[in-house]
Amino acid sequence: MSISPRYLILADGAFGVHTSKTAVGCIRFTPEQVVGVLDTVTAGQTVEQVLGFGGAIPVVASVAAGMALDPNILLIGIAPTGGQLPESWRPVLRAALESKLHVWSGLHVFIGDDPEFAELARRNNVEILDVRKPPPELPVSSGRVRDVSATVILTVGSDCNIGKMTTQLAVRTALKERGVSVAFAGTGQTGIFIDGKGLSVDAVVADFIGGAAEQLVLDAAKTADIVLVEGQGSLLHPGFSGVTLGLIHGSLPHALVLCTQPSRTAIRNNEWVKIPSLKSLIAMHDLVTTPLRFAPTIAVAMNTFDLGDEAARDAIERGMAETKLPVTDPVRFDPGPIADAIIAFHEDRLASGQRHARN
Amino acid sequence: MSISPRYLILADGAFGVHTSKTAVGCIRFTPEQVVGVLDTVTAGQTVEQVLGFGGAIPVVASVAAGMALDPNILLIGIAPTGGQLPESWRPVLRAALESKLHVWSGLHVFIGDDPEFAELARRNNVEILDVRKPPPELPVSSGRVRDVSATVILTVGSDCNIGKMTTQLAVRTALKERGVSVAFAGTGQTGIFIDGKGLSVDAVVADFIGGAAEQLVLDAAKTADIVLVEGQGSLLHPGFSGVTLGLIHGSLPHALVLCTQPSRTAIRNNEWVKIPSLKSLIAMHDLVTTPLRFAPTIAVAMNTFDLGDEAARDAIERGMAETKLPVTDPVRFDPGPIADAIIAFHEDRLASGQRHARN
Repeated sequence: MSISPRYLILADGAFGVHTSKTAVGCIRFTPEQVVGVLDTVTAGQTVEQVLGFGGAIPVVASVAAGMALDPNILLIGIAPTGGQLPESWRPVLRAALESKLHVWSGLHVFIGDDPEFAELARRNNVEILDVRKPPPELPVSSGRVRDVSATVILTVGSDCNIGKMTTQLAVRTALKERGVSVAFAGTGQTGIFIDGKGLSVDAVVADFIGGAAEQLVLDAAKTADIVLVEGQGSLLHPGFSGVTLGLIHGSLPHALVLCTQPSRTAIRNNEWVKIPSLKSLIAMHDLVTTPLRFAPTIAVAMNTFDLGDEAARDAIERGMAETKLPVTDPVRFDPGPIADAIIAFHEDRLASGQRHARN
Repeated sequence: MSISPRYLILADGAFGVHTSKTAVGCIRFTPEQVVGVLDTVTAGQTVEQVLGFGGAIPVVASVAAGMALDPNILLIGIAPTGGQLPESWRPVLRAALESKLHVWSGLHVFIGDDPEFAELARRNNVEILDVRKPPPELPVSSGRVRDVSATVILTVGSDCNIGKMTTQLAVRTALKERGVSVAFAGTGQTGIFIDGKGLSVDAVVADFIGGAAEQLVLDAAKTADIVLVEGQGSLLHPGFSGVTLGLIHGSLPHALVLCTQPSRTAIRNNEWVKIPSLKSLIAMHDLVTTPLRFAPTIAVAMNTFDLGDEAARDAIERGMAETKLPVTDPVRFDPGPIADAIIAFHEDRLASGQRHARN
């Protein structure tokens, strides 16, 4: 995965709707890596015309038309219902491989395990990358992250799908603007595609969640002073809390950024689980990090996309009053306060000589 | 898996040593299900002579010799180094399948995926059961357990390998003696072999830990008033805490039994993680269960096997003083106090009319 991606994104029949989350995420955060989108429904328009952002990136109707845009990777940007490979995609994948495009996929079904596509890839000397396929030799995590000198920051949240990846990407931009050496560690398929590397922690066998997170941080810490780990799930989530805690104890962050959505009062699709106050959420994270390595929550990222301007600013004010922490919506307003809190924490950590301590 | 097991246990070259944990567990808890052990080193002795318990169960040197004992299953009772299938086991497995024995295995490598053994099993009309192979269609957990009327009790612990399975099995016996309708839900390979059913929750893909636990409880609750779920790992464990929390939030216990070992002050193989006080452990579990369904800790099981009698009784006294809960070593002394605490909790739950409430 050491290619500079130039994605042609497959989003046929679903571009701009909910199931094209991966396509939209890549366009939002790294439009410079996207040369075109393949969608027969909106073909002929620009991405900007379909999504309201994304500029002049063209939407095309076929791989053949897309090849004029000089892609090197066909990225699967939509999730088929049921997670299986729709029959209608087979000619598209065939054409892509025959055009010598790599194929990158985050589907549950592994495209590289399909005999026809595996053979086509081999014959055309391109690679099929199924990012949900875990590497074969993951360790059980055992705190090896304590040896890295980089400052590790993890986003945690009150629920799934609330901005844990988006916050880290926005903060990364802000840290870069401030001249900081920073790396993003992607833990889910969209984060991995945006960054061109990473490890899908929820796709590994349960015993190795922590080991996957540990490996990811060890790799990212080689190249940066600050590592921003993409959080997953929530300690409150009935389905995914195990992934969340495994990620926390495997990545062993020095500090946390809490992601919330003020309008959300219960876990999505699990209305019986009420979301407690910011203070309670912070206390819960304090408690689970303390026995391994205490990680204070140093800022709050609020996803206010569904509020008016005044309500959004009110929610942020209330959050600051409750937590005494920097609170912002890093997409709507400014990731700066979070970036500044991270820099202050990092400098304080260096100053207090913890750089070479193992705790 | 609806067979009454009559196990011939393969433990060749390792019977009675650490790597035969599965063999020893099955003999300790369900000796009536074990007709013989296959080990060329100790062949000719009884299990009692090798282990110090287990009675007259014979150790034999071959499958052929074992067939005289009328087994129906060859159970793999040892873990090979590296998790792979040793070449030297192949003739044994071949002989077992040709003798029309089912083969049950908890290895990481799946015996049923081996073409030779798969074909032999088919031809002899027997089944190869790889218990670490998760069922294909697990759901993401979503609180469906709230609909069952049975009282669900989960063991949690300060570390791995501290007595979470052993406690539930000892308590099950005590509950049966008290005339209670009780089911054990095994979540790891030994627990599954002992009970002849269950689901290895740490072997599923991370997204489905909770779903596996949920399924297990739904199944067990069909046949019993009290379901004893075998706990896994620890909320403190750097490698396995994700499995632990996923199991807690998937099985949604009504109450917890905390398992500890007084002599253990740090997580095994992770000495940097110190084990906090019983009170802190209980507070941590209170905190993570509260947002979903509060599960009080109602008893403490102490594993005192490495203490003298007086030290063991002292540790139990101190535990009772600290927690104000029933504390016992259910193996060395008596599981009764835990069983009684569970019955009292169950009756109180029924009396307070929570049976039909969803919380």
